[in-house]
Amino acid sequence: MYDKHLDIERLVHTYRQEVYNYIDEKLPKWHNHPDIQALYEMLRDYPSRPSKGLRAALCLLTCEAFGGKRSSCLTTAAALEIFQNWILIHDDIEDDSELRRGQPVLHRKYGIPLAINAGDALHVKMWELLLENRKTLGDVKALKVLEEFCRMAKETTEGQHLELSWVDKKRWDLTAEDYFFMCGKKTSWYTAITPLRLGALVAGVDDQKLEQMIPLGYKLGLAFQIRDDVLNLLAEERYGKEAAGDIYESKRTLILIEALSRCSAEEREQAKKILDKPRNLKKVEEVEWILQLLKKTGSIEYASEVAGKLVKEAINIFEEVFKEAQNAEAKAAIRSLIDLVVSRRW
Amino acid sequence: MYDKHLDIERLVHTYRQEVYNYIDEKLPKWHNHPDIQALYEMLRDYPSRPSKGLRAALCLLTCEAFGGKRSSCLTTAAALEIFQNWILIHDDIEDDSELRRGQPVLHRKYGIPLAINAGDALHVKMWELLLENRKTLGDVKALKVLEEFCRMAKETTEGQHLELSWVDKKRWDLTAEDYFFMCGKKTSWYTAITPLRLGALVAGVDDQKLEQMIPLGYKLGLAFQIRDDVLNLLAEERYGKEAAGDIYESKRTLILIEALSRCSAEEREQAKKILDKPRNLKKVEEVEWILQLLKKTGSIEYASEVAGKLVKEAINIFEEVFKEAQNAEAKAAIRSLIDLVVSRRW
Repeated sequence: MYDKHLDIERLVHTYRQEVYNYIDEKLPKWHNHPDIQALYEMLRDYPSRPSKGLRAALCLLTCEAFGGKRSSCLTTAAALEIFQNWILIHDDIEDDSELRRGQPVLHRKYGIPLAINAGDALHVKMWELLLENRKTLGDVKALKVLEEFCRMAKETTEGQHLELSWVDKKRWDLTAEDYFFMCGKKTSWYTAITPLRLGALVAGVDDQKLEQMIPLGYKLGLAFQIRDDVLNLLAEERYGKEAAGDIYESKRTLILIEALSRCSAEEREQAKKILDKPRNLKKVEEVEWILQLLKKTGSIEYASEVAGKLVKEAINIFEEVFKEAQNAEAKAAIRSLIDLVVSRRW
Repeated sequence: MYDKHLDIERLVHTYRQEVYNYIDEKLPKWHNHPDIQALYEMLRDYPSRPSKGLRAALCLLTCEAFGGKRSSCLTTAAALEIFQNWILIHDDIEDDSELRRGQPVLHRKYGIPLAINAGDALHVKMWELLLENRKTLGDVKALKVLEEFCRMAKETTEGQHLELSWVDKKRWDLTAEDYFFMCGKKTSWYTAITPLRLGALVAGVDDQKLEQMIPLGYKLGLAFQIRDDVLNLLAEERYGKEAAGDIYESKRTLILIEALSRCSAEEREQAKKILDKPRNLKKVEEVEWILQLLKKTGSIEYASEVAGKLVKEAINIFEEVFKEAQNAEAKAAIRSLIDLVVSRRW
């Protein structure tokens, strides 16, 4: 059990370590054929970089809060992190990103073909790992966990499709509502809804309680993504992504949507013209101009306020859903984790 | 049950229709959000194109041969075809292909980012479908089928990595043995070993018999791939891929490996120089020169002979493994299917 005097960041870090040590054990290490060995090293690349481990921590703490053992949930939490890792490999290609966790993205190290395939191989490893749940959870619960992963991956790929197709089609007729719809799918399911549901499921709570995790995780996920969008613009070193990468990638963030509704018609046209260019044609000063537009329209503060409001609403739902949670320490830790979602600087 | 007077091509086509009608039912059709609807249409793109359906047919016939019902194996056979479809979406990006089943590849219709994501969404659909096996096969057998899919996908991604990395690293120090090792992983598992194992597993045969499917499927898969490599060079209209696409993609086929070992040192150097160029820098006459080299060294005939020999060996193993098969008609159909692997012109 964790020490309640540890602050939440340290606690998350401890849980993260536990999960990633387990992942390190489970990913294939050696193959006598050097070329397959090279694939195995690619699979270990993203998981060996520093990451937050927030999703695993949320899953493990929820399991503990409802009286489950952390050890019974370790495989599931590890599979959640593997999901995050394989989807980021593909995501980084789809977004044409440069940096991930402070290092070049996988396809800039190995090329797009090998990176797509490595993402698929890591995806398969996730299902393989989930089948190991049979030993600790039994067949029925292991199968329920698999169903949760299917739902999560379905929602995430739908959300990703929305975001990508808006950039692809140069769509600008987007509202905050569109953003929330996209983001609920792209981020909330795998960041919060499913980690909460899985922790509770492994601990043995009933289906009704699992359903209540959806509105809680939905709001929490949105707040997380908005905070991520803000951090992307501030781009401090700890964050590990390139500065203002979202502008280079023309991401339709809440901040950008708000700024376009607040600025003048001329500014809007100018912004669209810049953002419709592919990343390699965007000049540094153009990206800087967009950044200034976001700042001077007060859109970054606006988005931060929205995130703060979402977290407050999430806390209200949390108190209701976790009312009967047996483990007060774990519950308190989740409460702190929810605050961390919008206060974090990484 | 099928009519024994139908020839094998017609039988395969009938089974294929059954499986693809089922897939059509199972893939998502409607979403009230038009952009998600667009994703659903992408998922249906490859499955709606004409395809061989050989893997599904082999799986269903094996199930019938060992006394299983075709209906009990339909979900599994459909998932095999979905595997083929999602992996081809990614494969076509990785190989920078142009045509698939007579039409432009998915990423040339929608761009690489949306196509990678659609491949992932279809991949997830495969696991979702496999969970439906619980209803017809029960939890234990449904889980065994999932394990088979994990093994298959692991081998396939490893084989794909080998093939891609050889092109990427401009590797030419390759032997027939290297080709068989790569191809056993890249092709044999998902084309033959796993379809055979799954059909037998659903029918209820024991683990020992399942193990015997490996050498049978291994040889059959190699023969299938060699025939595919030959057809690629002949590139008749029915085949649905671009003429000599493998040369444009610098694929290390058995034909090419053999040709490089048979030609003069000057020709070898010239061939490598052409093949090490990216596809867009290869001139039509250079590709034609390679094609002539393959022809004049007799490497196409050589590879066809190897495929023929592999099929003969496969038939010997088949007779042993299927000795106690209850259903003589299904067994005879598989026997014809094995011949079809190397006699097919599509």
